[in-house]
Amino acid sequence: MNGMFITVEGPDGSGKTTQLKLLEQALSAQGYEVVTTREPGGTKVGNSIREILLSPEHDEMTARVEMMLYAASRAQNVEQVIRPALSRGAIVVCDRFIDASVAYQGFGLGYDLEHVLSLNEWATGGLTPDLTFLFDLTPSEASNRMRERGQLDRIESRDEAFHQRVYDGFQTLLAQHPDRMVRIDANETIESIQDEVLDITCERLNEKGVNKA
Amino acid sequence: MNGMFITVEGPDGSGKTTQLKLLEQALSAQGYEVVTTREPGGTKVGNSIREILLSPEHDEMTARVEMMLYAASRAQNVEQVIRPALSRGAIVVCDRFIDASVAYQGFGLGYDLEHVLSLNEWATGGLTPDLTFLFDLTPSEASNRMRERGQLDRIESRDEAFHQRVYDGFQTLLAQHPDRMVRIDANETIESIQDEVLDITCERLNEKGVNKA
Repeated sequence: MNGMFITVEGPDGSGKTTQLKLLEQALSAQGYEVVTTREPGGTKVGNSIREILLSPEHDEMTARVEMMLYAASRAQNVEQVIRPALSRGAIVVCDRFIDASVAYQGFGLGYDLEHVLSLNEWATGGLTPDLTFLFDLTPSEASNRMRERGQLDRIESRDEAFHQRVYDGFQTLLAQHPDRMVRIDANETIESIQDEVLDITCERLNEKGVNKA
Repeated sequence: MNGMFITVEGPDGSGKTTQLKLLEQALSAQGYEVVTTREPGGTKVGNSIREILLSPEHDEMTARVEMMLYAASRAQNVEQVIRPALSRGAIVVCDRFIDASVAYQGFGLGYDLEHVLSLNEWATGGLTPDLTFLFDLTPSEASNRMRERGQLDRIESRDEAFHQRVYDGFQTLLAQHPDRMVRIDANETIESIQDEVLDITCERLNEKGVNKA
């Protein structure tokens, strides 16, 4: 893989999607080929799976099935979009990846962490991000921001204790992967975060020797 | 598990769905509680997954993802419908189960058989049918019957070689599981098949000592 695989993680409302777009624009302006994608989704098949996952009508879905559907959407995204782009030397920026499954289905729903990891490793053929930005925002702050946005989906509407476990899960992952994961304080201004994310990305691109398109 | 778990397998057009309904009626008339279900589907979540799997627009779906979606639908069906019914002593008759994944995704698409089995074992928590009826119909006969019915879905519209591998796969499974799997000649009359299926089922119910509701 000649390209670079970057993921952004954190709760809804943390500004990660906005920053992903700003990063894409900045890197494209520098002459890199940048492919942005998201999970669940990113492909036609993945978007259909996303609809099932986020629809509030599917309140009977078991934790096991939820985990399998996230992994299935991810498998399609890796095979159809991410690996081909990395192979031709592009930068891929993905909104959520395996860390989200570990945090939400593992820590959040209490599903066995080894199962979450082994299913996902199998689904992605062992693909790991080179760099992950974790947008750090407490559950209460995230919840306030989401309430302002309006209607919540099936995952967002879970209770406070769930979101606290997810938050703690992300902190555990951050401690376990200090080289790959970088904490971003989501309370900083958009401009300040934008600069920080771009600086770190450019440093890693130089280290890895990723070429412009 | 006090009940009995029966599955019916075979190609579309083999008459298995008709026979499943006739079996359900006969067993209900004898006083058993009978729960019928199908895969993919059988639950609200499963039916949404079924739509993705069978939609001809999803021609980019990878074999790995197809396998995961079948297994996800199955996991939901097992946890929500099949295990609760078996626990209260009911007879569950399911239209397709793990054998279908082994035949279609394993033998048909060439996916590693060990992977298919281990994913499904994990998805179902190791649940195995007590009795499986394999409706035996050659690919050319099945294809003739399906053409008469009209439009084909994403799986049915695959080429002849695929359906031949699936057929051979089912024959292999039949040889591997002589106690669990019973071959039904799908060219016999509806009445003759109906009698055969009911006789075998009643014999197994007596052997296992399944109680009427």
